[in-house]
Amino acid sequence: MRDPEKPQSVKAFAPATVANVGCGFDVLGFALHKLGDFVTATMMDTPGVRISRITGDGGMLPLDAEKNTAGLSVLKLLNELGMNDIGIDLVIEKKMPLGSGLGSSAASSVAAAYAVNKLLEEPFSLPELLPFTVEGEMAASGTPHADNAAAALFGGFILVKTHLPPDVISLPTPPDLFCTIIHPKIEIQTRHSRQILKKDVALEKAVSQWANVGSLVAALFKEDYDLIGRSLHDEIIEPVRSVLIPGFDRMKLAAEEAGALGCSISGSGPSLFALSRGKETARKAASAMGSELQKLGLEYNDLISSVNTQGATTVEEKASS
Amino acid sequence: MRDPEKPQSVKAFAPATVANVGCGFDVLGFALHKLGDFVTATMMDTPGVRISRITGDGGMLPLDAEKNTAGLSVLKLLNELGMNDIGIDLVIEKKMPLGSGLGSSAASSVAAAYAVNKLLEEPFSLPELLPFTVEGEMAASGTPHADNAAAALFGGFILVKTHLPPDVISLPTPPDLFCTIIHPKIEIQTRHSRQILKKDVALEKAVSQWANVGSLVAALFKEDYDLIGRSLHDEIIEPVRSVLIPGFDRMKLAAEEAGALGCSISGSGPSLFALSRGKETARKAASAMGSELQKLGLEYNDLISSVNTQGATTVEEKASS
Repeated sequence: MRDPEKPQSVKAFAPATVANVGCGFDVLGFALHKLGDFVTATMMDTPGVRISRITGDGGMLPLDAEKNTAGLSVLKLLNELGMNDIGIDLVIEKKMPLGSGLGSSAASSVAAAYAVNKLLEEPFSLPELLPFTVEGEMAASGTPHADNAAAALFGGFILVKTHLPPDVISLPTPPDLFCTIIHPKIEIQTRHSRQILKKDVALEKAVSQWANVGSLVAALFKEDYDLIGRSLHDEIIEPVRSVLIPGFDRMKLAAEEAGALGCSISGSGPSLFALSRGKETARKAASAMGSELQKLGLEYNDLISSVNTQGATTVEEKASS
Repeated sequence: MRDPEKPQSVKAFAPATVANVGCGFDVLGFALHKLGDFVTATMMDTPGVRISRITGDGGMLPLDAEKNTAGLSVLKLLNELGMNDIGIDLVIEKKMPLGSGLGSSAASSVAAAYAVNKLLEEPFSLPELLPFTVEGEMAASGTPHADNAAAALFGGFILVKTHLPPDVISLPTPPDLFCTIIHPKIEIQTRHSRQILKKDVALEKAVSQWANVGSLVAALFKEDYDLIGRSLHDEIIEPVRSVLIPGFDRMKLAAEEAGALGCSISGSGPSLFALSRGKETARKAASAMGSELQKLGLEYNDLISSVNTQGATTVEEKASS
């Protein structure tokens, strides 16, 4: 029996995200505006989780809920509640590119869990939702990673201390920080991008890296833009992964010459992100980076965005018909 | 010709310090109260830097200014000023144990540079003094490390982004944080303690380490004592170095069972530090850790101290006679 007072359908949005943020491989992330995924969750009479439609994926994503990050996160959530006999229909609208290094699978996973949690009148708090989204996202990357999912769920900058169970710390966002995204139209598989990493790193480089993570965290608290720039260095992951991205070195240099605080790979690529103080500098960086790709004859999309501090959100709630 | 208005003698104090702070090998440090070194710098007519007396070192430290960390930092300072024809006498009073892992050489180096800078009516700002103290301290460790020196100079918690030239970030100190120091009466040479470290570390462990550095920095800003405790883990350095310290594992466990937030090696040891919320818990940790050493029949000294946020300071200034 349905309660006519309860919502029968909820539509949620979860944003695209930048993971790693230069120095913070596997531990840092932040959320963007404009790009992201919408998921509409609707009560249905037939038990089970059904994905009735996915748009914007070019037919790439599975409709089988057991194989889809959004479906999996909802199944995990319902399982925790012991509500496996409930029926939920999901419609996924992808408004961001797949395989771009911008947390596409996390956006779907988070939007789905967020929508269903609202639909069920919030049995879980926001932090309690995170484990389901991380488990859902495991389907895409093979290993549990909470950096994209936590940034998409909570918004702002996040630091992931442990991935599963997730221990996530929210960090402050300096108000004048803007992000430039350049997405070259090539595809990199996350799995491959992880396989090429070396298993060991030189202690000396690891020390530099944790100094930079520490100083980036401090810089966010202090709103010290110059220190953000001095901290955005990655001598461990970027040198290995950047060879998969044509024109990377030139784009990075162009961003810095245009006045950006720093530039690196977004997640496992191929997108690049640059952080700038002020929107105008972020625009200049986009133009400078883009022109390097144009010289190589490569197509790309760009985006200028402040840091999205809201995270996942409800878009509209339809009353039951 | 001496100016009778100028001070002819300055006595300065620089505190003992805890470097590494668990997760932050080579990048984190904080200062203590009570322990430290006094250096009295006095103008003399003969050109050159002379160390006329050292007390509290058991005759271990060289009086030759060129071979002494305090003498070296003063020589570097005078050289930068082009004042190599000036004459300065140094008296060093060590009020802390040598080779204890509490930044003994940094305390001497910082106190000397601080005293001479005051004597010369502050040609250098505090941050400008740091490079001289780091270069002076190189004589002890063989490699430039700014973690102890920066904590001794500035006080509070510091993060060292780069050592030489030093790029140091001051971090906030939660007001209710207390430190327990246990100094077992055994000696470890810093050089040896560094040699036993592996040159490479597993990427997975390095990631955990930079997550912990990031979360410890965030915890200091947020005054989140529980998060400080969750961040004080070191899977890279502590497992290697702790084997040089008899009873380490038992002392660490005893500290945690006594309610301390966390416990690890201070610097390169053999001293241990524990951080606690509140003085009473810090006392209990000292007692619990100490009793483990007593069971082993080992002598030790202990100290309970809040974090010293003042750093180097002038103790008294004598007018010229």
